[in-house]
Amino acid sequence: MSNKIITIGREYGSGGKYIGELVAGKLGIPFYDKEIMEKIAEQTGFVNEFIERLAEYAPSKNIFSYAFVGRNSAGESMEDYIQNVQRKIILDLAAKGPCVFVGRSADYILRGKADTLNVFICGDAEAKKERICKFHSTTPEEAAKLMRDTDKKRSINYKYYTGETWGNIKNYTMVLNSTQIGVEKCADIIAQVYMSKS
Amino acid sequence: MSNKIITIGREYGSGGKYIGELVAGKLGIPFYDKEIMEKIAEQTGFVNEFIERLAEYAPSKNIFSYAFVGRNSAGESMEDYIQNVQRKIILDLAAKGPCVFVGRSADYILRGKADTLNVFICGDAEAKKERICKFHSTTPEEAAKLMRDTDKKRSINYKYYTGETWGNIKNYTMVLNSTQIGVEKCADIIAQVYMSKS
Repeated sequence: MSNKIITIGREYGSGGKYIGELVAGKLGIPFYDKEIMEKIAEQTGFVNEFIERLAEYAPSKNIFSYAFVGRNSAGESMEDYIQNVQRKIILDLAAKGPCVFVGRSADYILRGKADTLNVFICGDAEAKKERICKFHSTTPEEAAKLMRDTDKKRSINYKYYTGETWGNIKNYTMVLNSTQIGVEKCADIIAQVYMSKS
Repeated sequence: MSNKIITIGREYGSGGKYIGELVAGKLGIPFYDKEIMEKIAEQTGFVNEFIERLAEYAPSKNIFSYAFVGRNSAGESMEDYIQNVQRKIILDLAAKGPCVFVGRSADYILRGKADTLNVFICGDAEAKKERICKFHSTTPEEAAKLMRDTDKKRSINYKYYTGETWGNIKNYTMVLNSTQIGVEKCADIIAQVYMSKS
């Protein structure tokens, strides 16, 4: 497998997903997000909301309750089952051709299996809070809590499934602060580096 | 003070210093390295070798011996004395006009005092080792040791004088892996972001 894949990890509120869409648009390659959810739903029979909760954010604080409650016939917990389905879908999509993945530990899943450009998007707390308020119509307090909780879950999830630290520079080709650089310029830089690696 | 300053932190062997020189050349602004050493020597009367050891790499493993041996009339340890002289020189140079600093915790010294673009350059271990062998005519084993020791000293120094973690993404506008991106392209990206912030 030698398709050039872009993976984007991101802090909540940093605009990382939007940057991913912009990059995919600039390069004319697919951006996979909803399609992954649909494929998981198709293969597992679970509804989207349940998958979303488990696929990116498990194991949550309730790791022990999940671990003892839901297991399939192979003895996997529901989170592990969905993660495994998701892992295979990501590998299949990456084998199809160049594309962009956001989140889902795709950098780790594709390590050694594809030619990846791994990006992490971070941002300044105040700006991230403002962005969350704007796009999710929340109060600043709700935005702050949402930001804290979501990043914590992403970080725990990444640690659990990769054994590594989320946002540690050694796992990325580049880390960009979208507040200081701007989302458009971030997308521009990622596309440039992608092209220069040809 | 509102001069636009670029600060570059870097892992040993990543080419960060060279990237700093390239960026300064592209933007036509000064790159300060030797000049800082010369100014410290001028103001303290110490020879360059002694300053180099204490200015960037102190406190070393011998922090306790230093702490009890050399103190000036103000009761400062030699490291703290040199760090303070260096701090003032960096602030003075930053007040003069746009420029590039490499290392020396300049990002922290200028925080809230200048409009900084803070960059951290990292790289893949094997490539950094090769670069060290090439430019310092060492064996791979010596290069590996030099790399480990120098980064450890830089990390301890940064922690000691800033209270923060060296290489942590929250302190930088961007982190670039020079092995994966290439030193020329890194310099190009930094110059672009610097210009786009105008």
